[in-house]
This record gives sequence, structure tokens and C-alpha cells, in this order.
Amino acid sequence: MANKVMSVDAIHDLAKTTLMKFGADAENAGAVADTITMAERDGCVSHGLFRLPGYVATLKSGKVNGEARPTVKTLAPAVVQVNGHNCFAPHALKAGRASLIEAAKTCGIAVMPMIGVHHFAALWPDLEEVCDAGLAAFACVNYKPSVIPAGGKKALYGTNPIAFGWPRPGKSPMIFDMATSVMARGEVGVAARDGHPIPEGVGVDADGNPTTDPNEILKGALLAFGGYKGSSISMMVELLSGAMIGESFSYEAAVRDIADGGPPQGGQFIFAINPTLVRGDDGWSEHAEGFFDKIYEQDGTRLPGDRRYQNRAKHLETGVEVSPIILEKIAGL
Amino acid sequence: MANKVMSVDAIHDLAKTTLMKFGADAENAGAVADTITMAERDGCVSHGLFRLPGYVATLKSGKVNGEARPTVKTLAPAVVQVNGHNCFAPHALKAGRASLIEAAKTCGIAVMPMIGVHHFAALWPDLEEVCDAGLAAFACVNYKPSVIPAGGKKALYGTNPIAFGWPRPGKSPMIFDMATSVMARGEVGVAARDGHPIPEGVGVDADGNPTTDPNEILKGALLAFGGYKGSSISMMVELLSGAMIGESFSYEAAVRDIADGGPPQGGQFIFAINPTLVRGDDGWSEHAEGFFDKIYEQDGTRLPGDRRYQNRAKHLETGVEVSPIILEKIAGL
Repeated sequence: MANKVMSVDAIHDLAKTTLMKFGADAENAGAVADTITMAERDGCVSHGLFRLPGYVATLKSGKVNGEARPTVKTLAPAVVQVNGHNCFAPHALKAGRASLIEAAKTCGIAVMPMIGVHHFAALWPDLEEVCDAGLAAFACVNYKPSVIPAGGKKALYGTNPIAFGWPRPGKSPMIFDMATSVMARGEVGVAARDGHPIPEGVGVDADGNPTTDPNEILKGALLAFGGYKGSSISMMVELLSGAMIGESFSYEAAVRDIADGGPPQGGQFIFAINPTLVRGDDGWSEHAEGFFDKIYEQDGTRLPGDRRYQNRAKHLETGVEVSPIILEKIAGL
Repeated sequence: MANKVMSVDAIHDLAKTTLMKFGADAENAGAVADTITMAERDGCVSHGLFRLPGYVATLKSGKVNGEARPTVKTLAPAVVQVNGHNCFAPHALKAGRASLIEAAKTCGIAVMPMIGVHHFAALWPDLEEVCDAGLAAFACVNYKPSVIPAGGKKALYGTNPIAFGWPRPGKSPMIFDMATSVMARGEVGVAARDGHPIPEGVGVDADGNPTTDPNEILKGALLAFGGYKGSSISMMVELLSGAMIGESFSYEAAVRDIADGGPPQGGQFIFAINPTLVRGDDGWSEHAEGFFDKIYEQDGTRLPGDRRYQNRAKHLETGVEVSPIILEKIAGL
């Protein structure tokens, strides 16, 4: 069956109406639909409509409240806490974003601890509007254990993605967004399905022994990227999105989760920095652009996010090709 | 020749008097001697007395001002800028630290851009006192190009270390501190000296081609750890300690540097976070300790810094064994 070409607006409508069909109100559904649509628009298929059944599962199970009203509380001049009251993360983020931006614009740096949210998407959509306001930003989130701590044998950390964004006035921001595991669990699943081995250094079996068999890794755990260094970064993510903000570590989220196929309740940690105040002048943008030029000067390099922006330009013009298998799944929900 | 056992105080005296002999005043010399002594005390030999000839070289060349008086300026409620006026970084850090801690305690998060400094040490000594004040903290610094951007062939990034610390009231903080290159340049130098090959994936030759020959890597460049992921983090370090604070990128520092064997002028980026304000209560420590217990539960794991603290306990009792070669070099300065 051929892929179906859908406009970005049509993707948004499909996501929103589907979520509303299962109990989300317009605001909650709209925020999640925005995130799903951004992913499809930018070619990040694994975070697009593909996730809709997972979102719906948590609405059906009642784990997520589709009518939640996030509350925003200033805990200190540079701390804007958002409590999602069990909403999906994009809705909570939308509720707090303006206050985060304002605090960072005033104080120079500000942090937004997000508690009581369910994160099931990429991190770059969370940073783009913050960067478009002229701020650099960082975000991280934990999930459920699937990565072993360096030297250990059992999963304790989530795939714990981190993202960092740099504003580029007049252009789309530079944002990198990466799991701190060597490989995504989904990629291991694809290899298992297709019968391909996995390179060494990606995962371990249920006993914690290194293996290249994707089926064994699925029963076991993944490794952090870059050995003990990536493992330390993954630990930092646990601390920032766990104890720092008063939300679950990955192992706590898993214990509490009802495994309905959707994201567990957890926290998200974001901070934003105002380079104009930190540097004391407006020269940061020209300075950084000169640095980016130095990167591009070398053949074979690119900036993180370049491919997303190329996809975006194309898809806004031509529409997005969506797999009929995913559309069938959504229709059958 | 046997190693000489020196007390921690004797190491401090030697470092301080040597720096003062070459024009540093008591304050500047004392701050650097503190950092050198912490490194020797904790078993980080490559950042201890071994670095003293490099510090002295920059005093002799006049690149570093051994009588500088760093100035501290509050640029915004959560921004404490320190201008070192060409001092060594430890002195500037000491000048600004109390203001950084105060800003973070008040605002919840605060950043300390350090400009006009020369950084030639590990990062963990910069964070320890901040963490002991009950704050989490992050630091990074660039240097001179020795790492290629992912996909490229020529060095553009420094080895760009990052450090993150988490306070543990009643205990020494957890602090990790790591270069974002796969391997330190010094380790490649040791392999070249001893005639050992270097594992694949560590470096490239002068034409940007992968090689395992340490001599070729020394003429060429290193890779970031963990492939494109580590490369993105190294780029973030360049942005934070360069354009963000109004200081040099690594490639700018190298152009300006006179290559006297000591550190170039550059910047350092530090921020501190108050978990009590970000979380809204004091539960963060107990929560994090439970998480650390989960790590330790697994045989083979440890927390970053554990080895340093073991060395510290031992060396404070027994003194530190110092190589006679280093002591001769210092005596001959």
C-alpha cells in the first residue's frame, strides 16, 4: 500500500480529533497535536503519528488526565515550577513557557522544573520557541530503566535524552537532541524483527553480559553512549529530572507505572539562559555565527538540526508521506 | 631515584613560593597553589606539580598577570561576571564564588561567566566548594583546537571538559569531570613515547584520516567521545565558554596565544542550582542518596570522584609521593 501524502494541517487535525475522541479536551489535545505535527513536519517519524496509539492508551487507562489544567508557580526569582497534574508534557510546557522566558530575560538564567507530566516526545520541540525568544536552553528527562550504570549489569537509567539549543536570530535555532544511550531501544527492536545483529558495545543480556543479539538485548539492557562518560551524563539527567525537581527517578517511575503502553508519570528539567545579560552585550550572535561558519568550512560537517530544517522546508511545501499502517492503526483505535 | 613523600602543606608551600619567585603575589600564587595541592592530594598527578612549569612559563612570558585583581560585577540578578584581568582561573573563581553562591541561593539558579582567565587545571576543584554550600553546579571550559567536529577532518574544538557536581550534605559531593575528547592528548603522547598503538576511533592524522599511530595523531587531531553525540557536547562547551560569555572560542584562543607552554587566555562558564528552591523543599538529598544506593547495589559500579576521595583520605594521612623528575624540573626553573 502506498504512503498517503498529508498536509501538516491535516496531520494536526487527525492527532487532535483522535485525542479528543478519547477524552482529551481541546487544549490538552491541541498541545500534544502540536508536538506530533512538528515531528512529522521535520521528518522525525518515530515521534510523530506513530506515538498516537501510546498517547491514546494512557488516556484510556486514565493514567493521564486529558482535561488537566497545569498550574504555574514562581518558587524563586529564577524558578518557574509547572505542575502538570498528570497531563502530557507539551501542555504543561505551553503553560509555563512564557514565564520561563520572562524569568530568564530578567534574571539572566532561569529554570523550569516540570512535575506531574508524561513525556513521550522528542525534546527539541520543547526548546524551539524558547530559543526563538533569543535564549539558549537545555532540557532533559528520564523515563524507565533501560540503561546500565557504567560497570554494572542491570538497567537503572532511562535512555535519558538531553537537548541544547542556541538562538540564531533570523534563522532557525541550532538544537541538538540525543538519547544518552548508544542506540534507541526502538532501533534494537527493528534489528530483532529483521534478524540483524547489533554492533558490540550497544547492549547486554539479562545477566549483564555483552551481546550482539538484539533479542537478548531486549531482555537485557542498553549501554550509555561513550562508556563511563555517557553513563555519568545519564546519571546527571536522573538527578536533574528526579531529586532536583521532586519527581521520580527512572526506577521509581517504572515501579509506579501501569505499563499501558504510554509514558510513565515523571518530571522534566529545563533551563534557559539570556546571552545578552550573561555576556553583557548583543555580540553573542555574530560571534557564534562566525564559529558555525568554521564548522561548515569543513566538508562533511553539519549543524545538529540541519536535516530537520531541510525536511521542514520540503514538507511544508509538498506535505508529509505517512505510512498507511500507522493510519490504519489510528483509525482502528 | 625514589619518589619523595611530601605532606600536603609542603606541596602547597613549594607551589606558592615557586609562583611568587616568578612574580605572582601571595594572593594569586596562593589560589593556584590551592588548586595544584588539591590535585596532588586527590591523586590527579597530571594536574598537580607537573603543571607548575607551565604556570611559571606564562608568568615569565608576561601572558599572565601574577598581580591581577579580578573584578566581580553583577550583570543581572542571576549573573555574576568575573573578569580575571589575565589572572589564572583559580584566583578569579575565588573572587567570584561567594557571589555566585549567594545569587543561586536567592534566585534558585545563577551563572558565573568568567572572562580574561587562564585555565590550566581540572574542573572538579572549581565546583567542590560550590557543592559544599548545598548547590548543584556545572562548569565547562574550552582551550585550543585539538578535536575535530563530527564529520570533519581538522581540529576545531578543544578537549573541552565538562564537570557536574551534586551536593551530599555531610559527605563529599559527587563530581564528575571529563574531557569531551575520547582520550587526553597527554595519553596519546605517552603512547608515542612508549611506542604503543592507540585504539581505533581516538584520532586522525594531519589529513583527517583515521589512524592508530600516536605520532600521526599528535600531528593530526583527536575525536570527541561517543561520536557525533560527544561532538555536539563539545560544540555546546565552545558556545557556553565562548560566544555566551564574550570570550574566545578555542580557535580564537589559539590564534592569539603566544605558545609559551602555559594556558591561553580564555573563558570559563559555571552555573549553580539551589535544589531546595527548585524542588520547593529539602527532600532532594535523601531522595538522591536513595538513588546513589541503587547504583552502589550493583557490583562493579562506583560514583564519579570516589577514587579521588579515597586518595585524599590516604594522602592526608601518609603524604603524597612526588616524582623526583618533577621536583628537579621545578628546582631548575
